[in-house]
Amino acid sequence: MLVKNKHLTTIWYEHNTDKIKIIDQRFIPFELKIVELNTVDEVCFAIKEMQVRGAPLIGVTAAYGMYIAARTKSNLKEASEKINSTRPTAVNLSWALNKIMTGIQDINKDRLPDKILEIANQIREDDINNCKNIGEHGYKLIKDVYEKNHKPVNILTHCNAGWLATVDWGTALAPVFVAHKNNIPIHVWVDETRPRNQGFSLTSWELINENIPNSLIVDNVGGHLMQHKKIDLCITGTDRTASNGDVCNKIGTYLKALAAYDNDIPFYVSAPISSIDFNIENGIQDIPIEQRDSEEVSYIQGLDENNQIKKVKIVPEGAKCANYAFDVTPAKYITKLITEKGIINASLSSIGKLKN
Amino acid sequence: MLVKNKHLTTIWYEHNTDKIKIIDQRFIPFELKIVELNTVDEVCFAIKEMQVRGAPLIGVTAAYGMYIAARTKSNLKEASEKINSTRPTAVNLSWALNKIMTGIQDINKDRLPDKILEIANQIREDDINNCKNIGEHGYKLIKDVYEKNHKPVNILTHCNAGWLATVDWGTALAPVFVAHKNNIPIHVWVDETRPRNQGFSLTSWELINENIPNSLIVDNVGGHLMQHKKIDLCITGTDRTASNGDVCNKIGTYLKALAAYDNDIPFYVSAPISSIDFNIENGIQDIPIEQRDSEEVSYIQGLDENNQIKKVKIVPEGAKCANYAFDVTPAKYITKLITEKGIINASLSSIGKLKN
Repeated sequence: MLVKNKHLTTIWYEHNTDKIKIIDQRFIPFELKIVELNTVDEVCFAIKEMQVRGAPLIGVTAAYGMYIAARTKSNLKEASEKINSTRPTAVNLSWALNKIMTGIQDINKDRLPDKILEIANQIREDDINNCKNIGEHGYKLIKDVYEKNHKPVNILTHCNAGWLATVDWGTALAPVFVAHKNNIPIHVWVDETRPRNQGFSLTSWELINENIPNSLIVDNVGGHLMQHKKIDLCITGTDRTASNGDVCNKIGTYLKALAAYDNDIPFYVSAPISSIDFNIENGIQDIPIEQRDSEEVSYIQGLDENNQIKKVKIVPEGAKCANYAFDVTPAKYITKLITEKGIINASLSSIGKLKN
Repeated sequence: MLVKNKHLTTIWYEHNTDKIKIIDQRFIPFELKIVELNTVDEVCFAIKEMQVRGAPLIGVTAAYGMYIAARTKSNLKEASEKINSTRPTAVNLSWALNKIMTGIQDINKDRLPDKILEIANQIREDDINNCKNIGEHGYKLIKDVYEKNHKPVNILTHCNAGWLATVDWGTALAPVFVAHKNNIPIHVWVDETRPRNQGFSLTSWELINENIPNSLIVDNVGGHLMQHKKIDLCITGTDRTASNGDVCNKIGTYLKALAAYDNDIPFYVSAPISSIDFNIENGIQDIPIEQRDSEEVSYIQGLDENNQIKKVKIVPEGAKCANYAFDVTPAKYITKLITEKGIINASLSSIGKLKN
C-alpha cells in the first residue's frame, strides 16, 4: 500500500542485488527504515525482535530465511528449527517452513537455493493474493452496512492486521482498503494495543498514508463506544485459528469480542487459511501463549521534544511486570471468519471444509 | 497509608500555618511533591489537571476549596459553581459542595470560614472512616476465598481507587490493605489504565510502598488471566453509581466486568454512599462521560535515561485522538457493591435503602 504516495511492501527479494529486504517496523511511525537480511541469525532477530511481525509476514520472512540458509550453506533442518523457535504463537511460521521443507524433498543439493527462492516468492505472491481476496470478501460486509444506513461506516480494529502484518493489503484492514477504493465512506477506530502500541504506531500510520479517516483511542475505550452505537462492526486478524473456530490474536482481542457480543455488534476475524491450525481443537486449552520481555511493558517509545526517538520508563521503582502477548477469543463470540475463499462460520464443520 | 514507611494522606489542613496541602499526584511514582492550595483557581486547577483525582478525593478537595473561597472573601455561590464545573462525571463533587452550602445556610458572615472548615474537616474524617469500613466489609470477601483455597488470593483492580483516590485507605484497595494487615496472602494484578496510567503510576506505587505483592499488566491482559483462572476476584472503584446499580468508573472497567462475568469470577465495586446518585436511574443513558484533552492519549510521561521526567509523543504525524475518560458497567455484571454500611446488591431496591 501507500507510504507518502509511493507503493511499498513489507518484504521483497531484490533481483539485481540478490538481497532480501524488509521494512524495520520498530521505528514506524517515526522513521521508515529499510534493512537487508543476510544471515539466518538476522532472520531470527528480525522475527523475535519484531522488525517484522504479524502472523502472515512472519511466515513469509521464515520462507526467505530458508533461502538465506541455503545460500549460506547452513544445515537446512537446523535453520528451520531455529527459525521456528523464534515465536511460539503464530502458526504461519511452521506452516511456511513445512511448505519449504516439503517442497525441496526431491531437489538436488545445488538446485536448493533456487528452488527455495522460488517457493518463498510463491508464498509471498500467494499472501498478497489471499489478502486481496480477503479484502474483496470482507468489503461486501462493509458495503452492506453502508447501503442500510447511508452513513460513514464505523469500524473498530485491534492491533495491526494491516499490510504491515502481511506483505501487502493486510488481513483485517484489507476489507477497509477495498471499501475505501470503492468510495464507501468509512471511519476506523484504532486502538492503541499495548504493550507495543501497534494500533497507534502501525495501523494509524497505514490509514493516514492511505487517507482513510481514523481516530485513535486507548485500548480501554472500545466497550464504551459500542455501548453508544459508535461502532458498526469490528474486524481483527488472527495469529492462530483453532479448528473449532477459537481465534488466538493479540492480547485484548477477547475483551473487544465480549463487548461486541454484549452490544449486538458483528465481530469479524480476517483469517487466511494459513492461520488455521487443523490440529488444534480447543484454542483456549491448546494454543501456546507467548510471554515476552517485561521491558515491553515497563518502557514505551516515542518522540521527544527534539523529534528524537526515545524510550521512557513508565513504572515505579521495584515494579514487576508480566507480558502476555496473545489471548484466545472463543468461537461463540465470532460472527464470521473472512477467508480468501469466502466468508464462513467460526465452527468445526465450516473450517473442516477448508482442509485441502 | 505508607510512603517509604511514613504515614501520609492525600490532603490535609495544617493547623499552625492555616494551609491546605495536597500531594501533587501528577509526578507519582517518580516524585513525591507536596503543594499548597491558596486560591479557588488553584483548587480548580488541582481538580481539572488531576493534581488530585479519584471521586472521593475530588469531593474533599472541593470542600476545602470552599473554605479557601470563604477565607479569600470570594462569592461562595460563584466559587461553588466554578469548582463544580471542573469535572463532570464524579458525583462526589456536587455532593460535597451541596453539603457545604446546606451547612452554612443560617451562619453569620464572619463565622463562615470557620464553619466551612469544620464541615470540610468532617467530610475528610468521614471519608477516612467510610473507606476504613469499606475495607473491613470487603476484607471478608477476600478472607472467604482464602479460607476456601488456602492459596494467595489473586485480585484484579483497574485504575487507582487506592488511598490516593481518597484521603486514606482507598475504596477498591481498602479491602486489600485490610486483608494484608490481617496476614491474608494476596497478589494484586494491577492494570495500566491508559491513558493516564493510574494503575502503573499510582496503584502499583501504593502497593509497593505497603509491601503487597503485585504484578503490572497492560489493560488488554485481564481477560486472558481470567480465562486461565489466574484471578479470584475483581474490585474496582466508582465515580458515580446510578440508583439502579449501574457503575460509572474509569474507562475500561466495563470490559473487565464482561470478562469476569464470562468466566464466573466475582466483580465487586467499592462504592461509598457519596458516590451514589439517587437521581439517576440509568447509568448508560444519563451519566455524563467526560472527554478530556487528546494530548493525554497522544503523549505519555515517564523517566528518561537520566531519571528525568519526560513526555514523549506516541502517535504518528497527523493523528486524531479521542479521549473518553469513563464508561458505565451495567448492574447485571456487578456481583456486589461494597459500601461503608455493608455489602449490598447492585439493584434499585438495595440501593434505595441507603437513601438517608
